[in-house]
Amino acid sequence: MTRLPEEVHYNKAFGWAAKDSSGVLSPFNFFTRETGEKDVTFKVLYCGICHSDLHMVKNEWGNSIYPLVPGHEIVGEVTEIGCKVQKFKAGDRVGVGCMVGSCHSCDNCINNLENYFYDGAVTHGGYSNTMVVDEHFVVSIPENLPLDATAPLLCAGITVYSPLRFYGLHKPGLRVGVVGLGGLGHLAVKFAKAMGTNVTVISTSPSKQKEALENLGADSFLVSRDQDQLQAGIGTLDGIIDTVSTQHPLLPLLGLLKSHGKLVILGIPGKPFELQVFPLIQGRKLIGGSMIGGMKETQEMIDFAAEHNIKTDIEVIAMDYVNTAIDRLLKGDVKYRFVIDIGNTLRPSS
Amino acid sequence: MTRLPEEVHYNKAFGWAAKDSSGVLSPFNFFTRETGEKDVTFKVLYCGICHSDLHMVKNEWGNSIYPLVPGHEIVGEVTEIGCKVQKFKAGDRVGVGCMVGSCHSCDNCINNLENYFYDGAVTHGGYSNTMVVDEHFVVSIPENLPLDATAPLLCAGITVYSPLRFYGLHKPGLRVGVVGLGGLGHLAVKFAKAMGTNVTVISTSPSKQKEALENLGADSFLVSRDQDQLQAGIGTLDGIIDTVSTQHPLLPLLGLLKSHGKLVILGIPGKPFELQVFPLIQGRKLIGGSMIGGMKETQEMIDFAAEHNIKTDIEVIAMDYVNTAIDRLLKGDVKYRFVIDIGNTLRPSS
Repeated sequence: MTRLPEEVHYNKAFGWAAKDSSGVLSPFNFFTRETGEKDVTFKVLYCGICHSDLHMVKNEWGNSIYPLVPGHEIVGEVTEIGCKVQKFKAGDRVGVGCMVGSCHSCDNCINNLENYFYDGAVTHGGYSNTMVVDEHFVVSIPENLPLDATAPLLCAGITVYSPLRFYGLHKPGLRVGVVGLGGLGHLAVKFAKAMGTNVTVISTSPSKQKEALENLGADSFLVSRDQDQLQAGIGTLDGIIDTVSTQHPLLPLLGLLKSHGKLVILGIPGKPFELQVFPLIQGRKLIGGSMIGGMKETQEMIDFAAEHNIKTDIEVIAMDYVNTAIDRLLKGDVKYRFVIDIGNTLRPSS
Repeated sequence: MTRLPEEVHYNKAFGWAAKDSSGVLSPFNFFTRETGEKDVTFKVLYCGICHSDLHMVKNEWGNSIYPLVPGHEIVGEVTEIGCKVQKFKAGDRVGVGCMVGSCHSCDNCINNLENYFYDGAVTHGGYSNTMVVDEHFVVSIPENLPLDATAPLLCAGITVYSPLRFYGLHKPGLRVGVVGLGGLGHLAVKFAKAMGTNVTVISTSPSKQKEALENLGADSFLVSRDQDQLQAGIGTLDGIIDTVSTQHPLLPLLGLLKSHGKLVILGIPGKPFELQVFPLIQGRKLIGGSMIGGMKETQEMIDFAAEHNIKTDIEVIAMDYVNTAIDRLLKGDVKYRFVIDIGNTLRPSS
């Protein structure tokens, strides 16, 4: 059922799409709506590859509609604005993350995330030449931030920034643990350090120690399989940002927390965790979750990144490398985020 | 090894003690230290029977030392004070809860709970005629509170009051769920109502509805095994105080929470819970624990109870009924707390 009311016009666009759940992307022509009165239309320049793009491409969450153009870590340059747009003008550097629409009426939009779906029609993502988005969901990108290394902040960045703030783990001098050193984890280290906290990277791989301490600026490193190190770390952390998306034991992590410490889980493993209550009760510790962040906070995060010169560590790739990049991402073979150079390498398909 | 330094003298005392892990109490003579310069000595008048007394009596936590006089919900009247005591005088109505000593030097005493152990020697509890306690661990009981119905507030009361405050669930108009309607649960309903919140009792037993609504003043009642009621309650609560100490599913409780809602667990089941992360992450909900409260907050709780006329629903018993009461408590046959009338029924053993 194609929805084409007479009063709405559509513009041609092109990108790379999954046509089915095989996991392979290929060139694809589609339409975007014309710039509405509150819309910002922009030329996409860079788009990060987030692990959840893979879930969507392969329909692993069961809600994918094909053809599907992935991408929700998008930066670009404004080409056209609607007559009622107030915050942007043509030529502005802008970013769009996971949300392009919401109900605008609930207490907080967190429960009304409409990522990939908007206005009754499918909204395609950032693996494409152009996007049309309500200005409410567009953030401004300060001049001093490089566009390529900023793209992943729109999802991975806000995903770690928001819980650091929400759970009060951003105060200088606090001791914050970061579990897992991938796309989310390496940004958690950078944001937490910029906030003035003392950061411990917690990893199963001793091989990551040099990287964590020397390249990312963490203060210490703890091998989570080393009982002596776990023992020595008991009761030392105010909070932990856990970015690992496979099931793992929570008990040692709770042990590392001080009283009133907070364990924030960002990954969604396929199987439930085991939760032992005694460590929660004895020190009044808590376990919380978090998912991206609201638009106001996303802009705040971008501005904070600009002020503190925070960039994602990226590997920039050409559009036609995307299927190889997906294979490598599945193997964890990237430091730490692939970013597609859409502006220079996406060519119209015939 | 009995510790009897020359400069410390001891006074005779008597009570009922467990002599071994059989679970049976019997009369017992012992000594207390003399009133030290910061000590308050008081005649015990009433003592509540808490479920954790049973754990201690039977050595279910593995740290019991026999003979053991249980009791940590203690009220009485001051008989003597040390020369440096500032807050109390003879004749004052006082209470003592789980703590009679701490390190006085850590950030918060929660990690330094030294319940049942103090000063290198065993401290006996409130199933006895007299106690000697550092004034720091003694609270004052306002005149309008009946001593018998106040005794259980020293443990059960602070255990529910503290998390309501700590997790911000005390604000008028918030919607608070209380899971389980026992000693803790019925007090959670009373405190939460007095704080001005809207209270839903969540129970597996439909038979408790009348009691919850009519006698305890809850606003609504939800049968946790009724899928229709669970469905209707989705996303309606700001927080839940879960007092059930056996393993039970957390998923339906998380479902009842609004975004940013808080599930506070007070019971310690023998087996770990299953924790599904997605509901935590999607609405940025959290799971926390809590255990009793500090001395400042315990006094605050008692003053709040006095102001709002909060009393435990109790069954007052004679000292020699204690073994029967323990049997009944194990079967859940009490509404909602046994309190031993120590002052009138404890007789010296020969």
